[in-house]
Amino acid sequence: MGTTQLESVPEPKYWHLKTVLSEALDSEFTVGEILPNERDLAARFGVARATLRQALEQLELEGRLQRRRGVGTTVAPPRVGVAIGTEHQIWPGTGDDAWQAVDSAVAAPPAAVATALQTPREQAVHIVRRSRVSQGRPVAAELLYVPQASVPALTAIDTPSGPARARAVLRELQRLELEGQDRAVELGSARADDAKELDRLPGAPVLVVTTRFFAEGRTAALSVATYRADTCRLTFGASGGVEIHDGPERQAS
Amino acid sequence: MGTTQLESVPEPKYWHLKTVLSEALDSEFTVGEILPNERDLAARFGVARATLRQALEQLELEGRLQRRRGVGTTVAPPRVGVAIGTEHQIWPGTGDDAWQAVDSAVAAPPAAVATALQTPREQAVHIVRRSRVSQGRPVAAELLYVPQASVPALTAIDTPSGPARARAVLRELQRLELEGQDRAVELGSARADDAKELDRLPGAPVLVVTTRFFAEGRTAALSVATYRADTCRLTFGASGGVEIHDGPERQAS
Repeated sequence: MGTTQLESVPEPKYWHLKTVLSEALDSEFTVGEILPNERDLAARFGVARATLRQALEQLELEGRLQRRRGVGTTVAPPRVGVAIGTEHQIWPGTGDDAWQAVDSAVAAPPAAVATALQTPREQAVHIVRRSRVSQGRPVAAELLYVPQASVPALTAIDTPSGPARARAVLRELQRLELEGQDRAVELGSARADDAKELDRLPGAPVLVVTTRFFAEGRTAALSVATYRADTCRLTFGASGGVEIHDGPERQAS
Repeated sequence: MGTTQLESVPEPKYWHLKTVLSEALDSEFTVGEILPNERDLAARFGVARATLRQALEQLELEGRLQRRRGVGTTVAPPRVGVAIGTEHQIWPGTGDDAWQAVDSAVAAPPAAVATALQTPREQAVHIVRRSRVSQGRPVAAELLYVPQASVPALTAIDTPSGPARARAVLRELQRLELEGQDRAVELGSARADDAKELDRLPGAPVLVVTTRFFAEGRTAALSVATYRADTCRLTFGASGGVEIHDGPERQAS
């Protein structure tokens, strides 16, 4: 692990195995290669199946392995660095926006969203769904919550449904002067609809990026973006897009 | 869930149960309260134990529940917003730094760190361990990797070990002119030593924040900070410290 002088804590057996497996992945396997079955692996490393499974789960959590039904366990490609802009404060849908508008609806938001938007609990808001694709793969799904007060002219406009409707909401929102925004990143689990869009199972670990957009002295819009935690590394800062090859997830192990 | 118009995807049974449980937590339980045992809960909601367990696991992933051996399953407090500065680019240990220096050692870094630092694979670097406490609880553990070339004067200085040694490395590092930095956030699993420091089990999900510090046209230092994923929400931006009450993790459900 390279930092042994600092490690006074005994590590569980599966953890040591994880380290050994990780080195084997580097030296003996290529990205996309299918691992031998659990029985053979357990035999090779002289461990119990249960110990092996724990180690494989860790490597999956760290993005080193992918487990796909019908395929087996494969060596994962390095995580994709997905830039989360923080310098430039812009409205969704402006600038070099990596998001594609999918649909829009009007519905009551979750309680926490209503709280953040300071709208009454059951008051319907515009809910714009967008999706983000990186290197040809879906990496994130977003729900953008826009109070009707932020887009007053919209209700009067008879816009079609689908992407056109979503873009109409964004266009109206962009009429406001953006005063500021902030972001939070935390661990979550994929909702069924997000999971389908991200080609994951419901409940899969995701990184949830919540962005508040401030205008007219209030929260004019709230974005809840769900990123695949297995394939994504969220990058921040000027050169944030730069890849650290074979990935910081390695540094956590 | 408030966005039913957008949800064409059928949700698995445990997922529906999770939503029902989540509402019950809001209306019937207080933070720190111990949940009834699984048998009673399964009976009350009329589901199989396996289904209940899946739902409980989801709620734990989203930070709503905490499972502690000997205590049982308790209602978790809202996640703590931990500010990750991005505007001001400063060296570790300067400004209103929330980190405490713990120790320092000289050892070969993990392969991915050596790659990021562009140092030879086996070349030893200074490894400074720091820890971050928020609201009285340990929230993050950091390993700061500093190539000896970044602190040339240090090797000549006979500094004691422990925090004093760690601070000496930081002081020397701060002599360089910081030209820039970038950050990446991703999902990882807690190393044994970090886990102990964070009061977690090895392999627990963590948010890994990797920061590269640039000086003299190269990566002069690399920080790998491990945050508790269950209790932390990483916040970015001017008003990033502002709490969104009862937490964006709710918005992911």
